[in-house]
Amino acid sequence: MRAIVVRQGESVPSLIELPKPEPKPGEVLVRTLQVGVDGTDREVVRGAHGGLPNDDPYMILGHEAVGIVENANGTQLSEGDVVVPIVRRPGGHESEYYDRDELDMAPPGVYVEEGIVGGHGYMTEYFTSSPEFLVEVPRSLASVGTFVEPISVSEKAIEHAEATRAPFTWEPETALVLGNGSLGLVTLAMLDEYDRTYCLGRRSRPDITIEIIEELGATYINSNETSVADIPDVYEPADFIYEATGYAKHAYESVHALAPNGVVALLGVPEPGWRFEIDGSGFHNDIVLNSKAVIGSVTSHRKHFEQAIDTLEDLPQWCLDKLVTAYEPSQYEQAFTKTESEIKPVIQFSNL
Amino acid sequence: MRAIVVRQGESVPSLIELPKPEPKPGEVLVRTLQVGVDGTDREVVRGAHGGLPNDDPYMILGHEAVGIVENANGTQLSEGDVVVPIVRRPGGHESEYYDRDELDMAPPGVYVEEGIVGGHGYMTEYFTSSPEFLVEVPRSLASVGTFVEPISVSEKAIEHAEATRAPFTWEPETALVLGNGSLGLVTLAMLDEYDRTYCLGRRSRPDITIEIIEELGATYINSNETSVADIPDVYEPADFIYEATGYAKHAYESVHALAPNGVVALLGVPEPGWRFEIDGSGFHNDIVLNSKAVIGSVTSHRKHFEQAIDTLEDLPQWCLDKLVTAYEPSQYEQAFTKTESEIKPVIQFSNL
Repeated sequence: MRAIVVRQGESVPSLIELPKPEPKPGEVLVRTLQVGVDGTDREVVRGAHGGLPNDDPYMILGHEAVGIVENANGTQLSEGDVVVPIVRRPGGHESEYYDRDELDMAPPGVYVEEGIVGGHGYMTEYFTSSPEFLVEVPRSLASVGTFVEPISVSEKAIEHAEATRAPFTWEPETALVLGNGSLGLVTLAMLDEYDRTYCLGRRSRPDITIEIIEELGATYINSNETSVADIPDVYEPADFIYEATGYAKHAYESVHALAPNGVVALLGVPEPGWRFEIDGSGFHNDIVLNSKAVIGSVTSHRKHFEQAIDTLEDLPQWCLDKLVTAYEPSQYEQAFTKTESEIKPVIQFSNL
Repeated sequence: MRAIVVRQGESVPSLIELPKPEPKPGEVLVRTLQVGVDGTDREVVRGAHGGLPNDDPYMILGHEAVGIVENANGTQLSEGDVVVPIVRRPGGHESEYYDRDELDMAPPGVYVEEGIVGGHGYMTEYFTSSPEFLVEVPRSLASVGTFVEPISVSEKAIEHAEATRAPFTWEPETALVLGNGSLGLVTLAMLDEYDRTYCLGRRSRPDITIEIIEELGATYINSNETSVADIPDVYEPADFIYEATGYAKHAYESVHALAPNGVVALLGVPEPGWRFEIDGSGFHNDIVLNSKAVIGSVTSHRKHFEQAIDTLEDLPQWCLDKLVTAYEPSQYEQAFTKTESEIKPVIQFSNL
């Protein structure tokens, strides 16, 4: 079967042939439908994030997958069930995080993340998994199933951000999403209960992401014209900020862009090495005197995958359709090449 | 009656004579027992924080007070009740924060803080107040009643910090208090459920604060030998950090000093204008990949005053006794002069 991998020592993806896997006892065999490509995958390919499994000279890429159970192998799942795999798995050693089913809260080193660090991903025609790490998706959502994983990551970030504001009455009106990539846009669509939403990107009109942002009723902010630090003056301060770019200055500038009692959730992972000067007094002061909060959030728990499925049912179908560009496995090089004309490349391995 | 004030245009306290106040309908008259002096008071005196009431050429200082109701004036309080005043009050204009009884969450400008910004404090023989802003204290705690306000501030900060970790299992073992002033030390005493506690200060042995820190079972960290950023290497990372110095680098360095999933509560207010370079990538990255949280907290709500009274009952009496140095009102200049030999100056206006 075909698999899209990154080979040890290389920084480009390759299409290779692998034997179809056999499910071990307790595992099911999943036929892959689609696998998304995101910024993390590109970082993994160029060696900026994650790492290969110990035993193999390559890693199968991809962590945003949807598939269909082809061999239930005596488990509680059934042939024909549509499933999405959970990315983070136990790393093969004991951990309190695994014992209490909170591997999503484990620090680096404790886990593997399939397709990212230490474990094979899903960009292949078939994969095997314990049902423990598969989440069932309604058949009607199979065509947008690759969104379950990224939405689950936002479900968790929003839950953690809201928890910081739980001790008092917090009635947020304004949300700001930093980043107009696929994760930013789908999160913007999720934040439809806010009175006013903003989305920051680096692109100029005409642009498909700006069209989507405006069709979602949000205001586009061009970061080449308005920095995050200037948003309160040019637009308004935000009650909630969702950072999905990994631009290192955002952790600092976002605090200033928050309204009093606001919270910023950081999800982007910056490349190392960027040093810059800050107004340390102002930063510290603003957090204290305006009761602001900054949290980091990464990956997600099974419960967030389940919430993501509910969310996905409510998201506007036109938006999801506009986000996706489907590729054949043989077009993997194109799928991994970032362009401004497409938002969410997915590789179509088979059909329902 | 005598009152300790700061006069407009001056940056030293003064002792002046004022007429004894008459309670208005609905107000009680309180005879002041003790009023604490803290860092905020010193900032107010030198003009670095807060501001005078609009109508007067002076402001009565002091916000950490305990008194006794001398004239209940037909309210629900009784003569002889021991009370502590709540610092933050409505600023005389409409506010959603006042409507929902959450003035402690209001941003600057919405409120007055008695003895700090826009309202007279309690360093005077008598003051008047609506019972709405007085919290009853058991008579047995009258001698340590000036601690109710600072403890209430920590109650709130700890509540808000813990809320950020509520979405997952958080079993913190290690707490680090930055600052060995009175607020730091009393907070350290509050954190007795942690397995290991640390307290950072700038002093060298022999020192009364280091004695107290060690008597509380905590480890003293001399910031001249170990910076906050170095604490994980030299000691260990902390699950919870409480920042009470207002040293501007702490907002940045504390993140690095946190254990994975840790939270830092910032309470100190730095002087403006300190700029410095940071490793922006590392800061952002660490927050994201280790799911860390930073919150700011300021002042407190009536419920935190009430919690503080419960906490105060459980704190070791020897510790509180060691913290306090009592002064006569005529010794106000000494009380406002910071020295290394005393921790918590209080001005004794009258006795129970």
